[in-house]
Amino acid sequence: MSRPSAQLKTPKGTRDWVGDDLLLRESIFKTIADVFQRHGGTPLDTPVFELTEILAGKYGEDAPRLVYDLRDQGGELCSLRFDLTVPFARWLAANAHVTHVKRYQIAKVYRRDQPAIARGRLREFHQCDFDIAGAHDPMVPDAEILCVVVEVFEALGLGVTVKINHRRILDGLFAVAGVPADKIRSISSAVDKLDKMPWGDVKTEMLDKGLSDQVADRVGEYVQRSGGVLEMLDVLKASETLAANEDVRAGIADVGLLASYLEAFGIGDAVSFDCSLARGLDYYSGLIFEAVMQAPKEPESGDRNQSSQVGSIAAGGRYDDLVGMYGKRPIPCVGISFGVDRIFTILKPPADKDAKTSSPVSRNLDVYVMAIGGKEFDGLLLERMAVTRQLWRAGIRAEYSAKVKPKPLQQFKASMGVPLAVILGPDELAAGQVRLKVFQPDAEEENDPGRLVAKDDLVEEVKRLLRGTT
Amino acid sequence: MSRPSAQLKTPKGTRDWVGDDLLLRESIFKTIADVFQRHGGTPLDTPVFELTEILAGKYGEDAPRLVYDLRDQGGELCSLRFDLTVPFARWLAANAHVTHVKRYQIAKVYRRDQPAIARGRLREFHQCDFDIAGAHDPMVPDAEILCVVVEVFEALGLGVTVKINHRRILDGLFAVAGVPADKIRSISSAVDKLDKMPWGDVKTEMLDKGLSDQVADRVGEYVQRSGGVLEMLDVLKASETLAANEDVRAGIADVGLLASYLEAFGIGDAVSFDCSLARGLDYYSGLIFEAVMQAPKEPESGDRNQSSQVGSIAAGGRYDDLVGMYGKRPIPCVGISFGVDRIFTILKPPADKDAKTSSPVSRNLDVYVMAIGGKEFDGLLLERMAVTRQLWRAGIRAEYSAKVKPKPLQQFKASMGVPLAVILGPDELAAGQVRLKVFQPDAEEENDPGRLVAKDDLVEEVKRLLRGTT
Repeated sequence: MSRPSAQLKTPKGTRDWVGDDLLLRESIFKTIADVFQRHGGTPLDTPVFELTEILAGKYGEDAPRLVYDLRDQGGELCSLRFDLTVPFARWLAANAHVTHVKRYQIAKVYRRDQPAIARGRLREFHQCDFDIAGAHDPMVPDAEILCVVVEVFEALGLGVTVKINHRRILDGLFAVAGVPADKIRSISSAVDKLDKMPWGDVKTEMLDKGLSDQVADRVGEYVQRSGGVLEMLDVLKASETLAANEDVRAGIADVGLLASYLEAFGIGDAVSFDCSLARGLDYYSGLIFEAVMQAPKEPESGDRNQSSQVGSIAAGGRYDDLVGMYGKRPIPCVGISFGVDRIFTILKPPADKDAKTSSPVSRNLDVYVMAIGGKEFDGLLLERMAVTRQLWRAGIRAEYSAKVKPKPLQQFKASMGVPLAVILGPDELAAGQVRLKVFQPDAEEENDPGRLVAKDDLVEEVKRLLRGTT
Repeated sequence: MSRPSAQLKTPKGTRDWVGDDLLLRESIFKTIADVFQRHGGTPLDTPVFELTEILAGKYGEDAPRLVYDLRDQGGELCSLRFDLTVPFARWLAANAHVTHVKRYQIAKVYRRDQPAIARGRLREFHQCDFDIAGAHDPMVPDAEILCVVVEVFEALGLGVTVKINHRRILDGLFAVAGVPADKIRSISSAVDKLDKMPWGDVKTEMLDKGLSDQVADRVGEYVQRSGGVLEMLDVLKASETLAANEDVRAGIADVGLLASYLEAFGIGDAVSFDCSLARGLDYYSGLIFEAVMQAPKEPESGDRNQSSQVGSIAAGGRYDDLVGMYGKRPIPCVGISFGVDRIFTILKPPADKDAKTSSPVSRNLDVYVMAIGGKEFDGLLLERMAVTRQLWRAGIRAEYSAKVKPKPLQQFKASMGVPLAVILGPDELAAGQVRLKVFQPDAEEENDPGRLVAKDDLVEEVKRLLRGTT
């Protein structure tokens, strides 16, 4: 029907997930969703693709070449979603009766970027988003979002620092330093690279983008500052030239209010202020933030530690104008996006030494049902099926050999790693009994034949033993 | 940044899922995944798109126009997945060390079909698949798949009948009836419509496809039979002309073996044999099956009952040659796919009378934290935050007003539907206390002011009360 294909791979920048990897990923999703629900989040699931015009012009100058378009197949023009924020804004704009909502979404997004799989950077990857929409008193939702970030990483057992900045403070700094208004977004994107490259390189990029040496140096002086939120507020307030700028003053007021709310939540220590944080996306309008792994206490040898390799593992900000772009009433919003593939890379246990030879496929079984008998033995397949079905009905995870007459050794091999075995034999069955055997994971040699249990008591006995082993 | 857009909708045949709908869908997924895991299933997640050549030629004559292709953006040519079976076969072919596996996958698939949203028929929809791959003794995995089908619908509380047929019996019937070999797949697709249209219309389609009147009538005589599996085996065996056909004989042997396994599982009554069941997809090679809602006991007035409107809600079969199409070693497979959007349509509670005016957004909160005070009252925002954070840390779902000074009525309105309220007041807080109030869902008027609890005991008290209310 089709010719043999040489290309048995997933598309570039995508991967299959299987077995334990997938179960770990699901448990990360569950942990994060629990925190979102704790904060009153309602789930939303939007289609994988949107009308192309919905996505257009929302992400910045580099975005168009990173968006996957669907082929024009004689219907609407559609594109795969680039993030979960724009679909949320589209949903808000389309549902006029929703004026206030906390929504969360956990789903795949798509970017035709250069993939770097070892660092958890793919073309198809997962985001977990939590956003608060609606007109509220200033900084109250922003503070809750930061609280959500702290609680998610507490729940995942990861130490992170949340870096914050404010788009209006940044815009004010640039204006005071002498950056022309039409260059602010492009200089901002250069500044955003300060966590990945030294100041000299960032300055070169700014000169290339048309700044004078003097202006670039003034920008550098401002944006290389970071520290505790209150301490940085003092630094900003101390500069008369900065404090004279309206944007800077508005940003300082916001961040001051935020600081008091972070204190009420008891999370002030987890948050720092970083003037170089700029965030690439065009739609941010107020507070912006990014969570990075805490640097290890001891400086590591080698060039870069794991945290810097993985980069930011959650990021977000306030975007008050995005919903209004759809020609509807504006709804102020603030939100956070967790990069789950990066979190997965950090949490995944180190690869097993035997990983290359062992199967990626893991079964998590409770019971293996087998049969052993003498010369006239017919394999007892129907009896193995009936007993296993008894276990399945009781919600117990069970399997048996698909062979009509399986050999004992085959069955024992297949039961490896399963805590319990039920062993059927013609004589025991005739007496209404089966043999129940517990595998001891640490036993070197195993001669225990198990013990006889009435078939009618099997489910109850298995449940009792499973409670004991977990 | 972008012009106001007139098109604030999801692409044709797709929809947003939100709140309770999504939570119901998730609970259906969880119920099904539990059954899959009980049977030793390992989860797999593949990318939403595959290389186009992987999908090509696997689905039959109508498929190419139903597949969504991505635009050629200067990389690999990709298409959205049409089902989860072909991606599974690609994964098996690419992972040579996996020779035996039970895998499950719950994910969206894409078909550019005519959508019928009320019947749960969309262009983006969900499938839940369970497949058993590997060389096994005949019909043992097939029987387990049917057992999985029965267990899933038992767990969902839905009464279904599983109709089975066998491709070799069908091929044999057609051959004996005189259908030319090159017309078998296309006549088969006409026969498959017998559950949706009367025999006369199906016959007309067969005549249009080039059958003679006599051959068409002979086909009709064979395929309009259905009944219990054992009963139908007797009917097939009784016909000398059929029993002389090698394909029919092989199919009868398979189904006979299957019937004994279904008895061992105690699910013989849930399965019937339907000679008109044909299944459209090209890759099926042996047993095929389809679950349909059981007809209601009383004949309903009106033209069609809900079950026939929803159509089949799970379907699958054996496909022994698909993996081999990738030029690798063949691996026999059998699997089932559950149509979750249709199951959702059946399980969704009838719409609320107020649905049009009420928000689709539901919060499932445990506690609403509010503050009430006199003239000098400042709203106690920081205190509400601190108390709520106490609750969040304990895993309790809680919210408070985002207003600095919320009015009592606003707060009581916002607490509607939440079982508990914590009420802060300046005097109580000064004494280290808060007021804890239980809302009685059936109380008409509510004058209970709640009772005072020490702030330090709040979490414990809330947990105790929540255990009582659930």
